[in-house]
Amino acid sequence: MEFASDNHAGISAPVLDVIAREGARHGGAYGEDDVSENAQAMLCDVFECDVRSFPVTTGTAANSLALSCLCEPWGSFVCGDSAHVLRDESGAPEFFGHGMRPTPLSAPGGVIDVAVLSETLAAAAPDVDDVHRTPFHAVSLTNLSELGGLYSAAQTSELTEVADRHGLGTHLDGARFANAVAATGSAPADLTWRAGVDVMSFGGSKNGAMSAEAVVFFDLDAAETFERRRKRAGHLVSKQRFAAAQLEALLTDDHWLDNARHANEMAGALARGLAQIPSIELLGAFQGNMLFIETDRATTEAWQDQGAVFYAEGRGPRQTARLVTSFSTTTAQVSTFLEMARDLASAGQTEQSS
Amino acid sequence: MEFASDNHAGISAPVLDVIAREGARHGGAYGEDDVSENAQAMLCDVFECDVRSFPVTTGTAANSLALSCLCEPWGSFVCGDSAHVLRDESGAPEFFGHGMRPTPLSAPGGVIDVAVLSETLAAAAPDVDDVHRTPFHAVSLTNLSELGGLYSAAQTSELTEVADRHGLGTHLDGARFANAVAATGSAPADLTWRAGVDVMSFGGSKNGAMSAEAVVFFDLDAAETFERRRKRAGHLVSKQRFAAAQLEALLTDDHWLDNARHANEMAGALARGLAQIPSIELLGAFQGNMLFIETDRATTEAWQDQGAVFYAEGRGPRQTARLVTSFSTTTAQVSTFLEMARDLASAGQTEQSS
Amino acid sequence: MEFASDNHAGISAPVLDVIAREGARHGGAYGEDDVSENAQAMLCDVFECDVRSFPVTTGTAANSLALSCLCEPWGSFVCGDSAHVLRDESGAPEFFGHGMRPTPLSAPGGVIDVAVLSETLAAAAPDVDDVHRTPFHAVSLTNLSELGGLYSAAQTSELTEVADRHGLGTHLDGARFANAVAATGSAPADLTWRAGVDVMSFGGSKNGAMSAEAVVFFDLDAAETFERRRKRAGHLVSKQRFAAAQLEALLTDDHWLDNARHANEMAGALARGLAQIPSIELLGAFQGNMLFIETDRATTEAWQDQGAVFYAEGRGPRQTARLVTSFSTTTAQVSTFLEMARDLASAGQTEQSS
Amino acid sequence: MEFASDNHAGISAPVLDVIAREGARHGGAYGEDDVSENAQAMLCDVFECDVRSFPVTTGTAANSLALSCLCEPWGSFVCGDSAHVLRDESGAPEFFGHGMRPTPLSAPGGVIDVAVLSETLAAAAPDVDDVHRTPFHAVSLTNLSELGGLYSAAQTSELTEVADRHGLGTHLDGARFANAVAATGSAPADLTWRAGVDVMSFGGSKNGAMSAEAVVFFDLDAAETFERRRKRAGHLVSKQRFAAAQLEALLTDDHWLDNARHANEMAGALARGLAQIPSIELLGAFQGNMLFIETDRATTEAWQDQGAVFYAEGRGPRQTARLVTSFSTTTAQVSTFLEMARDLASAGQTEQSS
Repeated sequence: MEFASDNHAGISAPVLDVIAREGARHGGAYGEDDVSENAQAMLCDVFECDVRSFPVTTGTAANSLALSCLCEPWGSFVCGDSAHVLRDESGAPEFFGHGMRPTPLSAPGGVIDVAVLSETLAAAAPDVDDVHRTPFHAVSLTNLSELGGLYSAAQTSELTEVADRHGLGTHLDGARFANAVAATGSAPADLTWRAGVDVMSFGGSKNGAMSAEAVVFFDLDAAETFERRRKRAGHLVSKQRFAAAQLEALLTDDHWLDNARHANEMAGALARGLAQIPSIELLGAFQGNMLFIETDRATTEAWQDQGAVFYAEGRGPRQTARLVTSFSTTTAQVSTFLEMARDLASAGQTEQSS
Repeated sequence: MEFASDNHAGISAPVLDVIAREGARHGGAYGEDDVSENAQAMLCDVFECDVRSFPVTTGTAANSLALSCLCEPWGSFVCGDSAHVLRDESGAPEFFGHGMRPTPLSAPGGVIDVAVLSETLAAAAPDVDDVHRTPFHAVSLTNLSELGGLYSAAQTSELTEVADRHGLGTHLDGARFANAVAATGSAPADLTWRAGVDVMSFGGSKNGAMSAEAVVFFDLDAAETFERRRKRAGHLVSKQRFAAAQLEALLTDDHWLDNARHANEMAGALARGLAQIPSIELLGAFQGNMLFIETDRATTEAWQDQGAVFYAEGRGPRQTARLVTSFSTTTAQVSTFLEMARDLASAGQTEQSS
Repeated sequence: MEFASDNHAGISAPVLDVIAREGARHGGAYGEDDVSENAQAMLCDVFECDVRSFPVTTGTAANSLALSCLCEPWGSFVCGDSAHVLRDESGAPEFFGHGMRPTPLSAPGGVIDVAVLSETLAAAAPDVDDVHRTPFHAVSLTNLSELGGLYSAAQTSELTEVADRHGLGTHLDGARFANAVAATGSAPADLTWRAGVDVMSFGGSKNGAMSAEAVVFFDLDAAETFERRRKRAGHLVSKQRFAAAQLEALLTDDHWLDNARHANEMAGALARGLAQIPSIELLGAFQGNMLFIETDRATTEAWQDQGAVFYAEGRGPRQTARLVTSFSTTTAQVSTFLEMARDLASAGQTEQSS
Repeated sequence: MEFASDNHAGISAPVLDVIAREGARHGGAYGEDDVSENAQAMLCDVFECDVRSFPVTTGTAANSLALSCLCEPWGSFVCGDSAHVLRDESGAPEFFGHGMRPTPLSAPGGVIDVAVLSETLAAAAPDVDDVHRTPFHAVSLTNLSELGGLYSAAQTSELTEVADRHGLGTHLDGARFANAVAATGSAPADLTWRAGVDVMSFGGSKNGAMSAEAVVFFDLDAAETFERRRKRAGHLVSKQRFAAAQLEALLTDDHWLDNARHANEMAGALARGLAQIPSIELLGAFQGNMLFIETDRATTEAWQDQGAVFYAEGRGPRQTARLVTSFSTTTAQVSTFLEMARDLASAGQTEQSS
């Protein structure tokens, strides 16, 4: 019962197939090959516009490289206070951006409220030319957020309008973008450039790939220095066609969305099941592939004792558990987990009432 | 007839097998998994000592991360004037090392002469504490070198002794280390730590892997800050077990050496064949998988017209061609190439004599 | 009526005298001169211990260089949310520290509460070895704070004990340290190393010098890389003896404390006078050379119209004015200002009551 | 007999006067003051064009900040192999430029030959868009050079034309620019922007100031990011009007040129005197304020024993001595030195012949 992370999963069959296919033949290095060209063309199709896209192997690289194209070293980007770029990348944005500063905003569920963004930027506006300050140059959103929250196309638009008004570029961390598309039912274009996003990290690794993300620029000018930055950060892979091929596999016949829909459905099934257990509280109204629940420590520990793998936080008697599903989560795993949870809950009730 | 680069090749069968194996199962992320542990153990075996090893996906990352552990931002490392770290990484060492400076030494065949190193370090020695200078902190060797040159264990020892005497650490760029081991017949340990190397980039991608290198520390203290550096450079891959698995596949049953031996043999066959053609001059006494030859431009262009793929340099009537073989180069490809070369040469001679 | 900043002042007579003295003679460059030696010896005397001290010309350089010696590029330092290092240095700490991150703590009056520090460090403690995070490496206090707040020796000790328990170094931004010493009556040693401070920025420019600060290390080991960092940041001045001479002038016969005491007294006189005007609210219980008051915008604007120079913040009908005194503020200036304030206040009252 | 360096000198009388003048009054901080405005206006006059100028306190800062405006982090600037930016700044350009790389050119007398520059840039031209390389973005000249060499206006033009053709910007390190102007008799404009220079470091500290240089942009667009860079490097001095005032003093009534002419004349007198001593060889045809001579070690040591202060290099029996004069070098000092040198020489001859 593996619910720890979608990056604990293996790789999906079409991804393995293209790796096998490329493994058996020669090809140009450093992205000068037909697979890389094809992946670029497919991303243009998926996003219904002319993009510039660049495969990389990690989300941290994708985010940091993208942000370094939007934000000067003496500038700052705003992000949610649970953002991966803030909390989980060991200061990679600062490294890639030569010292640019992340400024966290309070963001319940990992979703930045437009009023909070608006106030923050308005408060800083009078100092934007003050050489002593670190002016805001960019905003970074995460959709699906790190806490499972979802931005609709409309919400995204509202935020980028505020950003735009203050001259900020917008980055979207889309490590779980597929799950966001599946959850909203919106077109990829509607959740990104039509909503004002300038550049995104398009995630593959959490959605069935082995190690493939793409930095996708909708604002083509913003990509100007990207290739130099990627190369000197060691993120231009020699056999890059293997990364491109993984993206190709995901994008072919909507495989990426199938994977994400499946993961979301599994999380939905978990949520519906757990909602019926009185001792468990679902946190947030999340529709993606991540579920946050609150329950007592005895419960989370009992689950783990019975073989469930997931992260739990909290040092007191109550804990927050994060359950993540992936393309490879099975209905059987969900059923087994729910059954176990129900059994433990009723055993616990019996115990309490006896 | 693909002789452009060993990173134009596909992946070897055992590598694909482990990717398929890992793709079908779950595993811990960020290197906390049994495959990563096993790769580390295998590297200890191969090098007959306790090492600390870290998989990364590119040679540029491996080199730059390793060097940044040996050299302060205000220091300098010396390297050959054809070194990859100097010429082919877009300043990645400077980026990872926060400004540390490469100092190139004249190195025919990509091989640094001990006298040149010795003189350079001796000349700088009086200024080593002068705060205005950039003192030498490390030396970086490449074996097999970028120009196909080979360091023997004895040569390596001589160089690291000089480095050591001046307090410098030694890095070995081993993107083609397998070819060097195959060519020298020396034990991996003899070409590295027994010869005084502190840290190496152990190459896999050019030798049958998809994208897998390992930074291998023999000086365990030098590894102290490595994990922080790797993470914030975006080079800690979430599904790292796939990189570790590739290393595992290479190291199992000496597959890495079989691949390299084959590549070297193919290059040797090419060399022997070309040596018999009078209009072609073999440059250097190279025993690895790279061949540099000089011939006239008409010849290189004729070869390319007939489908041979390789790099050629020189804007005048004479050109230097680089022919690189890999694990996947076949005897048939070599024969076809040699036949073509011989045919063209005799046609050319006929023409000249007529 | 100049109350805008203590760095709007000129230089005090003893400072000019030593500049004239040094201007008339030759001396070694880059700190190899007797004046630099003497300044170092005087700082040892003032702090009653063996220090390593280095003159620089700006507070931003002093702070950033000092912090970069305490905090790794992948680490973070905590500071008050009004700290100069956070808000007024355009990201200089990030630049000097190669991306190290400032983490602001809520700090009313610019003074960090020990409970807030304690909670912050305790919350981060479990993750201190997590390679995904940016661990805390240092804390930066400012005494006198940017908002005029004062740390006693006891408060400082309490904070550094917490820092120490978590392995953090402590930096003190002492741009107005003289004012803090004058205000507390504590010995310089008691406010610094005896209270656990590892390195400080010792301010001169705001206290009668032209451009002279000193980075003073009490933890001598922490100074190890300082000279390299200073040089390559362009902060080793060729004619450094002029900066050292300014420090010498300040430290001779307690001139620095005389200057600071005078400034504090002038601010005290201002405070006492303004406290008697009902429409003016003094903010905080500040004893240094900075006064923050709240009043209505009409008042601050009227003062400015009558020639008073100071900073005022707030876009609504109420404003916060900052009044700063210096060694060169005169009793007459204070009287004139108070008279004006009283006159305007009574005119305003008359107006309101009529 | 102080001939060690022009930065061992004191400050000239007009410089002290303006420091005294500013010391007695208030003024705006961070360059928002009338003195700073005036210095800027005077630089426009001196250079007969619209410049953007920024005072800083060290030459290292001036050079590094200027170059970081011309060269991207992944780019390289070329400079002479004896350049201060290469050898005497501890990698400051790399620090300020986030890793940009200095590429040294062989430059006898510190003067880059146009053919050498031309060949270097032509050789690199085919790779200018190759993402693996570090393309050339700028050239840095030093006039007067670190080895006393002089660029004429025509030579400078030739070099900048080559640079321009390849898209490089040109920086001029003018730590001793006054001496170059005095030596050539050319107008400052002719040696700079009319000769194609984009930005220069205008030196004051070696020419009678205490610590004042100016970065002067002729290419106004190149200055776009300068103020951010200066601030976050800690080089925006709070009491900046004191630096501006020093520039003002130098530029008033050609005081800077008087100082430089005097220094040059003193060096000329030294040269003429030493040329008559057979055992002394003058190196180069230098017309500024630096003299390089070759003689035997016994001579340099005898001079030093008799109180002459200067740098001498060479570990064998022959040494190269560098004699530097300044605004404060007196005719008497020169005479005393020459007399001593002649006495020692004839004593030596007597000894030899006896």
